[in-house]
Amino acid sequence: MKALVKTDAAPGITLRDVPVPDIRDDEVLIRVRAAGVCGTDVHIYEWDRWAASRCRPPFIVGHEFAGEVAAVGALVTSVAVGDRVTAEGHIVDEHSLFSRTGQAHVDPATRIIGVDRDGCFAEYIAMPAANIWPLDPAIPYDIGGIHDPMGNAFHTALAADLAGAVVLITGCGPIGAFAVGIAKAAGAARIVATDVNPTRLALARTMGAHAAVTPDQAADAVRTASNGLGADVVLEMSGVPSAVHQAFALARPGGRVNMLGIPAKPIDVDFASEIIFKGLTLYGVVGRRMYDTWHQMTRFLRSGNFDPRPVITHRLPLEAVDEAMALIRSGEAGKIIFEL
Amino acid sequence: MKALVKTDAAPGITLRDVPVPDIRDDEVLIRVRAAGVCGTDVHIYEWDRWAASRCRPPFIVGHEFAGEVAAVGALVTSVAVGDRVTAEGHIVDEHSLFSRTGQAHVDPATRIIGVDRDGCFAEYIAMPAANIWPLDPAIPYDIGGIHDPMGNAFHTALAADLAGAVVLITGCGPIGAFAVGIAKAAGAARIVATDVNPTRLALARTMGAHAAVTPDQAADAVRTASNGLGADVVLEMSGVPSAVHQAFALARPGGRVNMLGIPAKPIDVDFASEIIFKGLTLYGVVGRRMYDTWHQMTRFLRSGNFDPRPVITHRLPLEAVDEAMALIRSGEAGKIIFEL
Amino acid sequence: MKALVKTDAAPGITLRDVPVPDIRDDEVLIRVRAAGVCGTDVHIYEWDRWAASRCRPPFIVGHEFAGEVAAVGALVTSVAVGDRVTAEGHIVDEHSLFSRTGQAHVDPATRIIGVDRDGCFAEYIAMPAANIWPLDPAIPYDIGGIHDPMGNAFHTALAADLAGAVVLITGCGPIGAFAVGIAKAAGAARIVATDVNPTRLALARTMGAHAAVTPDQAADAVRTASNGLGADVVLEMSGVPSAVHQAFALARPGGRVNMLGIPAKPIDVDFASEIIFKGLTLYGVVGRRMYDTWHQMTRFLRSGNFDPRPVITHRLPLEAVDEAMALIRSGEAGKIIFEL
Amino acid sequence: MKALVKTDAAPGITLRDVPVPDIRDDEVLIRVRAAGVCGTDVHIYEWDRWAASRCRPPFIVGHEFAGEVAAVGALVTSVAVGDRVTAEGHIVDEHSLFSRTGQAHVDPATRIIGVDRDGCFAEYIAMPAANIWPLDPAIPYDIGGIHDPMGNAFHTALAADLAGAVVLITGCGPIGAFAVGIAKAAGAARIVATDVNPTRLALARTMGAHAAVTPDQAADAVRTASNGLGADVVLEMSGVPSAVHQAFALARPGGRVNMLGIPAKPIDVDFASEIIFKGLTLYGVVGRRMYDTWHQMTRFLRSGNFDPRPVITHRLPLEAVDEAMALIRSGEAGKIIFEL
Repeated sequence: MKALVKTDAAPGITLRDVPVPDIRDDEVLIRVRAAGVCGTDVHIYEWDRWAASRCRPPFIVGHEFAGEVAAVGALVTSVAVGDRVTAEGHIVDEHSLFSRTGQAHVDPATRIIGVDRDGCFAEYIAMPAANIWPLDPAIPYDIGGIHDPMGNAFHTALAADLAGAVVLITGCGPIGAFAVGIAKAAGAARIVATDVNPTRLALARTMGAHAAVTPDQAADAVRTASNGLGADVVLEMSGVPSAVHQAFALARPGGRVNMLGIPAKPIDVDFASEIIFKGLTLYGVVGRRMYDTWHQMTRFLRSGNFDPRPVITHRLPLEAVDEAMALIRSGEAGKIIFEL
Repeated sequence: MKALVKTDAAPGITLRDVPVPDIRDDEVLIRVRAAGVCGTDVHIYEWDRWAASRCRPPFIVGHEFAGEVAAVGALVTSVAVGDRVTAEGHIVDEHSLFSRTGQAHVDPATRIIGVDRDGCFAEYIAMPAANIWPLDPAIPYDIGGIHDPMGNAFHTALAADLAGAVVLITGCGPIGAFAVGIAKAAGAARIVATDVNPTRLALARTMGAHAAVTPDQAADAVRTASNGLGADVVLEMSGVPSAVHQAFALARPGGRVNMLGIPAKPIDVDFASEIIFKGLTLYGVVGRRMYDTWHQMTRFLRSGNFDPRPVITHRLPLEAVDEAMALIRSGEAGKIIFEL
Repeated sequence: MKALVKTDAAPGITLRDVPVPDIRDDEVLIRVRAAGVCGTDVHIYEWDRWAASRCRPPFIVGHEFAGEVAAVGALVTSVAVGDRVTAEGHIVDEHSLFSRTGQAHVDPATRIIGVDRDGCFAEYIAMPAANIWPLDPAIPYDIGGIHDPMGNAFHTALAADLAGAVVLITGCGPIGAFAVGIAKAAGAARIVATDVNPTRLALARTMGAHAAVTPDQAADAVRTASNGLGADVVLEMSGVPSAVHQAFALARPGGRVNMLGIPAKPIDVDFASEIIFKGLTLYGVVGRRMYDTWHQMTRFLRSGNFDPRPVITHRLPLEAVDEAMALIRSGEAGKIIFEL
Repeated sequence: MKALVKTDAAPGITLRDVPVPDIRDDEVLIRVRAAGVCGTDVHIYEWDRWAASRCRPPFIVGHEFAGEVAAVGALVTSVAVGDRVTAEGHIVDEHSLFSRTGQAHVDPATRIIGVDRDGCFAEYIAMPAANIWPLDPAIPYDIGGIHDPMGNAFHTALAADLAGAVVLITGCGPIGAFAVGIAKAAGAARIVATDVNPTRLALARTMGAHAAVTPDQAADAVRTASNGLGADVVLEMSGVPSAVHQAFALARPGGRVNMLGIPAKPIDVDFASEIIFKGLTLYGVVGRRMYDTWHQMTRFLRSGNFDPRPVITHRLPLEAVDEAMALIRSGEAGKIIFEL
């Protein structure tokens, strides 16, 4: 089968012909139909310090996908050949204490497809049955193929009480843009979104932001939206130090800051004035809650209250991997999908 | 001033000329501009068993209103003459243990205006400053005048997690109709509303119900809306025994039933099969949370996500009290407002 | 192997010699060392209406146990031969929507060992690996053998905020007695326990109740414990109609009633005065949360803060099944354990 | 009356004879009987940068006290002359949006007695009736006089689910020592406390810590207590940068860190590895929840489950103010109380 392979500890990703994977009795083989491209894939492509320290080539790249079930192991009863499915790419032991107490998403023993083992930029992928999520008939493969990053956005957004809230979203890349749409669907009273990139601000407006502004205008926009009180909820989606400080500053006293963006290095924080005296709650977001987030996501999509399609800007074949990487780095792309 | 007075322990309510009330140093005098008529007022008008056991004539009737501040006591700093306001009609000691621990709405020492003391069907009413809620500039007096029943609906609806949920609302009187609109604004995936009255079902559709059906069709409608699972949340707004049983039956296992409707007499409930084995959570709703509900309500109204106006069907002068009572008893009215 | 078998649709349970069960690749074979006897077993023994409608003889009875792992299937990695274990007796599909969203305990497709399939009153039992819970080295087999009913008590008790609370526990059978000890360990300020049986009241005192009284004294005891306010939390463990009414009556306004006791028939409840106007929250308890309850239980036991041993009153061999049933029916036994 | 007055913008606090304060109609005059001395008072005494930027002499110092009611204003009904009381020292507008939505503790308009206006190191103090908390008959004045810092500890500790939890408490000054006792009373399974000061570690052991160790031993102690998992809950009571990093490092994945200690300057935090990838929740603690924390505190004290008395090490007259300040700076004192 065709697959995009990280062949060596060096920059680049290569299209190769590789064997279709075998499955165990508790696994499922999926014919991939759509697969989202993520910033993590760019790190692997560029072979930056994080990638070099974490990944062990050769392996197939890619961790966001949807497709149809091509084969199931002997013990698998929850899914059948022909089913349309997507999957959670974080593989954890179903019987670990974390999994059994609703905390699978933070299990330190997590292995990620396309990072720690073979991924989904390929015609087929083998997955544990435990990780398969049925794709609702109303949801097409392209949207199925981006459930992983949408799930990040759902996890981040729905870890706060959004109904009636003033929400600030710092960073309008694809996940931030999803978060705008989710906050809208969940009844936020006012959504202020910030980014430095005009294309992304336009996307945020399309997704439902009441105000989409550059960071220097954020304080005014939040003040107007909240009668001077501050944002009830901040979703920090950028990882940029100035945005993190702004998240704390523009949250109202007693407010909540859910942090998904990953700062590249330490940030000097004045806990006294920025966090403690304001009575803030901070929540670090990892992956998706297994599988509450997936259930919520399906319900939002099926209801039609949330439509992620404006975020998808490019559909490419696996062969166009270099173009996909260049597009993401340009900052002008929304979500890019490989179609197979 | 003009006032609608319950003069005697007998049917009827009479328009009278009475003195403008005095205020204490911690009270506020309000010129009433709009006042909602409620089923409770009908009970008082009819002088039924509940009214006869609870009320002590003579007193001015009415407990839902908005108006402008005409005078403030010497110690009042939170509101000024000329302010547009509405008010919580449940009067509780601000320093009671219930008030101080977020439970003022269930304080057994509550006294209700228009029931236990003089109410708002009058040109002026005196209220404790503690009970005044500022009316947002974007909210007109007529909507201000129905904050009390809307608040019942907000309390009932927002005591559940509605974003993405399948919601069943049993009973589409004015409060049920408000609840439909609130559930819609809060991101419910599907809203099924039931009533026996076609006028009310039409109103539920106007407010956003995906299905508005008679009780015999409810099970099918919930099944369709929930893929056979049952309703995540039921808002019981009728107090009718068959609707209460249906609320329990159509909630999904592990679901939640918030009960606002007041059954007139005991109901024979099989706790084992209806509640316990299903793992249901029930919540009895009293009044409005002071003042979280009021803050939520203001935010929903100000955002424009929730519009209660379709529920208001009649605007009458105080002189039309008999007509107002007849309209409510007919079941054909939505919310009726006295305008002054 | 020896096993207690429900052989026919008629009263009685019989000791038989039966084959050791086979296991599948995802199952575990356990050598049973201790097994608790439950009221449910009495229903099956007596072959009452519930049993006749639910059970399909022949099958091995018993659903509470601990033992050591004798064999594991090829795909099992979470447990090894020789491990000391106990197990959740409610078998649900690990990949059902209920299981995946933290609601496995209310999955309608649950099958219970010793009721719907072969149980644990036998030398060996086969269980899905998913249901195995490792037994902490500090916890002996006899306590491991009653994790199921203790788990009912933990689920019921910890579904409320007990620290500093006034707690009323209605019904002091074994599960009620466990609940007393759990409430004590979780920091309840005052625990009032009620029962009609003096032996059980004495047990409640041993487990830490500040007051253990007959139902006619309950109102006074709660009043004294709560400065007249009412119980913050009621744990209803009896299923007796008068106790259910008392649970509602003695809960404080805004309080919480967690219901585990199973009323045998419908109860006539005045929802208006008993539940709604008091702003109560009711929660129907089914089984144990999988597996949050098990983790909590292990932590309480390992810490030494909770000691269930006073509740265990009898240790018998499988051969003494008739004696065990008679003891439970007498009301004089606490928890009875079969030791193998 | 006698009072300890900050007379000038310079080091020192002076005993003076000043007039007994007047009260307004909604205020209460209290004859102070016991008043706790706090680190904040030391800052004011030393006139450090914080004090110089915040305080405006002359004013009476002190913010923790208990006493008896000497006079009440005309509108005060919730308390009477002769009542034993303590009081919340953070004065906020009862009708502010923060107060009305359960967030009074983070109201930016808060004014603190003994900091922003006259305090309690005096024979009498005038307080708003809203701030008075009745002192349970079972609670003596000395314990009443330290309700403020105990309340900080209760707020910090009970903002987490402690029953059955492994708890790490970093910093065992008086508030940390209270927190140990509260965690014990609330059913923590294991409590690890850290400090560099042996006297404080001994106090932590007295209050119930299972392990009280220096910071270099903390990782081992938490590992042992949690089977290698990490602390479920960390209460950061020191404000020391190395302790803050340790709080994040020793919390388990998905754990919670409640932060009360005030770092003197910014801390360089790697949000990616220390907070986000671990899925931590952080909560900044300000003051006491009004008045949920006070109710909880009363219940813990009245039950006898929590006894703060070992933390009180010195009882002095107002005249000994210099000695009190020296004792606190020595690090060898627990809680010091002025008795009047």
